[in-house]
Formats: sequence, C-alpha cells, structure tokens
Amino acid sequence: MENSKTAAILVIGNEILSGRTLDTNTQHIAHHLAEIGIDLVETRTIKDDAQKIIEIVRDFSSNYDIVFTSGGIGPTHDDITSEALSKAFDVAYQRNDEAYNILDSLYKQRGETMNAAREKMAYMPAGSELINYYPPGAPGFKIKNVYALAGVPYVMKAMMESIMPQLGRGQVVKSKNLDVMIGESAIAEDFSKLQDTFPQVSMGSYPFVKNGQHGTSLVLRSSDYHLLDSAYEGLKNIVQKYVQNTVP
Amino acid sequence: MENSKTAAILVIGNEILSGRTLDTNTQHIAHHLAEIGIDLVETRTIKDDAQKIIEIVRDFSSNYDIVFTSGGIGPTHDDITSEALSKAFDVAYQRNDEAYNILDSLYKQRGETMNAAREKMAYMPAGSELINYYPPGAPGFKIKNVYALAGVPYVMKAMMESIMPQLGRGQVVKSKNLDVMIGESAIAEDFSKLQDTFPQVSMGSYPFVKNGQHGTSLVLRSSDYHLLDSAYEGLKNIVQKYVQNTVP
Repeated sequence: MENSKTAAILVIGNEILSGRTLDTNTQHIAHHLAEIGIDLVETRTIKDDAQKIIEIVRDFSSNYDIVFTSGGIGPTHDDITSEALSKAFDVAYQRNDEAYNILDSLYKQRGETMNAAREKMAYMPAGSELINYYPPGAPGFKIKNVYALAGVPYVMKAMMESIMPQLGRGQVVKSKNLDVMIGESAIAEDFSKLQDTFPQVSMGSYPFVKNGQHGTSLVLRSSDYHLLDSAYEGLKNIVQKYVQNTVP
Repeated sequence: MENSKTAAILVIGNEILSGRTLDTNTQHIAHHLAEIGIDLVETRTIKDDAQKIIEIVRDFSSNYDIVFTSGGIGPTHDDITSEALSKAFDVAYQRNDEAYNILDSLYKQRGETMNAAREKMAYMPAGSELINYYPPGAPGFKIKNVYALAGVPYVMKAMMESIMPQLGRGQVVKSKNLDVMIGESAIAEDFSKLQDTFPQVSMGSYPFVKNGQHGTSLVLRSSDYHLLDSAYEGLKNIVQKYVQNTVP
C-alpha cells in the first residue's frame, strides 16, 4: 500500500451543491481507480468559483500523484475550469490547434459551423495533452498531473476509459464481505478484536435494515491477499458463533 | 444572498472512496439546505482518518456558519468521528449520560443488553447537544456549529428532519428551468448574453442526450424572484428564436 499512487478528485459545479444533481462521477472514478490499485484519498465539491479551483488544484497537484477535475470544460459562460487551471499552473490560457481541428471537423460532420462558444472548448492551458475518446466529442485535457474531465456523466465515462491505460497500476486492494443478520453493535466487539489481530486488513461495518431486521455488512479490504484470506476465515468463525447462539 | 447562512459538509468513510458506496447523503442535505435558503458552499469526502477530520472540521467550523459531518458515529472501531471532533475543539471525549440512558432503554426494549460497543455511541465531545429523532435510535450530536450526523442514509435523514427547525432560514434561492432540444454549444452565446443582462441570476446549462438528440437543460437561479421572472421571460424569447429557425 505504501508505494501505491494516490489520487484526489475535484468536482466543480453549482448543480451538485444546490441539490439539483446527484454526483455519480465520483463513484465511477473511485471504482476505476480501485480496479487498478490507485488510492483515492479525498474528493471535494465546489461551486463554479475560479479562485477556489486554483487553490485546490495547486494543493491537490502537489500532494497527490494524480488529480481529476470533473466539470466546467464546456462551451458556456459558467465553464471556467480550463481558464482556472491555466492560472493554477501559471501558463497561458490559449487555443489548442489540435483541439480546434477536432471540434471543427466534428461540427462540419454534423452540418454545423464553428462559433465562439464551440471554439471556447479548444481553449486550455498551454502545454496540455488532449484526452480524446470514443465516440468523438470535445476533448478533455491533461496538464501536469491533472486530468480535466467533463462533468456530463456519459462524456466523463468515455474520457475515463480513454485515460485508464496511462494511469499506471498499483497493488490492487481486494475486498471480501459477509452480510449477516446481526446488529452492528452486537458483533462490534468481536469485529474490533479481529481488526486488532489483522492490523493490515482494513475492516469496516455497514448496518442495513432488511425486512425490518437489522443486519450488518462486514467488509475486509487489503492488498495482502494472504492476510485477507486469513482474516476472512477469522470473520467466518466469529459469525458462526452468533449463528449457533441464535439458531440452536 | 450576502446575508444567507453558509454551510459545508464533511463526509467521512472509506466506503465512499473505495467506490463501494454511492454517496447520496450530500444531495439529501443539499436539498434540505436549498429549501430553507442556506448556501451550501462546499463538501469534502475523506477516509476514516482522525487527523484529517480534525483539520477539516476546524477549518469548516471557522469559515462556515453551519457544518455537517456524516459518518463515523457508530459502535465499531472504525467509527472515529466523535473522538476526532472532541480533539478538534479541545474538549473531553466523554460519556454523555442522557445519550447513555437513551441507548440503555432502547436496548432494554429490544430485550438486549448494553455492551462496550453500544456504550461507545454515548461517547461524544463534552458540551454536545443531542440530536434525537424518530423512530428513536442512537443520537447524533451538535458541538459548536457542527452537526455530527450518521452515515447510514435512513438514520441521517431522520436526524436531518429533526434539526431542520433549528437551522434558521435565509432567502430561498428559487430556480426556473427550460429543457430544450438545442445543443448546448448552439445556444451558449445567447445564453451568455442573457447572463450579462442579469448578473444577479445564476445561470447554468446542462447538456443531455434524449433519443439520440442533443438537448440542454437551462437553469436560472436567484433569490430575487422578480429578476428571476424577468430573466426567464428573456430565456423564453431566446429559445423561441431557435424553435422558429428550426421548425419553419
């Protein structure tokens, strides 16, 4: 785990904080990072606020290996991420010709013409690498260790697919879980002892209610698969004890 | 808007960052705050990391009027929010007798007995006020301007209902929106001009795809309802122009 790459996500958009939109992008990115063993350490959600974007991107970029932004790279006046990223890294906010040509041919294919709003999507920090994807659309971009992704979920997903091969791989954290119809507070002490026995296995418990009964999802996570298996055996033994107690 | 109360949310939980769980609590709280005119400025999601909780809670508590934490107040070893909040405010982490009595009678009603894990849920920062709710369960608590809520959605929701009357009210931001089957980049320039005409109305555009066609949700938000109505009339005029152009 120590040598895994770390990551953070900055979600930019008034629509999340007003309650209008449920943010599903964070979970999508989180899933993909988990698959390749990259450690997502934190996420933040802020409004379309250039100064905040600049501060957080600088902070994230120096503290994490990989940073994702989501949102604010579209054609409208409230899309301010590209310009803010330029300021965050003190580079020019300028038209990327490769991006312009992609957009130009996309609109030509649709029988439409370039306009100022469309051209805006070709503006990005100087030195950016484009994030192209399929089916083709306005590209995202990478500047330093920051991937600027779209906020619209289907576009963000396509961009994420496209960049996965370049993110590298760490030791994947695997998880094993056991859902039991035992209240969380009934099993907590034994579960805590199991945690003490296996400090390198991260253990979490998540209560749920099913058919009016309290149950608990017990989740073990580790990048040491041998330890994970041993801890899971220990967990099954604990649970067995409760089952024998309650079902004689 | 200037004199609206501000708020921030800190979501605590490994399960969100691992991708296991979709965070719906943020949107739920966001909705409720929007209803009473409280301005949700930012949210963060972090792991079960005491030092991070302490740092962020101190930061949020001094920068925002109201702070919510979600998660980490349960009975298990990974529930570290209550102790971290005690440290954040330099007060004792101690048993709250009122909370203990509530828990004790809850377990007695269920024919169960107190244990160390259950008693842990009565431990909280000295000077906390309890957050009770219906149907009764382990209470949350308020310390300074921080509301410590459960992470389990149905419990968090019950706690949120309970505290709504004490959060106060600001000028509610109302929104009006128009979904149009016009691409975002086609209408962007006119939309941006409308924004310039009504700087006190916050305007956002959110592209979508419906039956293979590009559409845009145009959203206007303001706490000045007269201006909002005027801007909305302006928006309808703009859209009318496109409809006339495309449907002769």
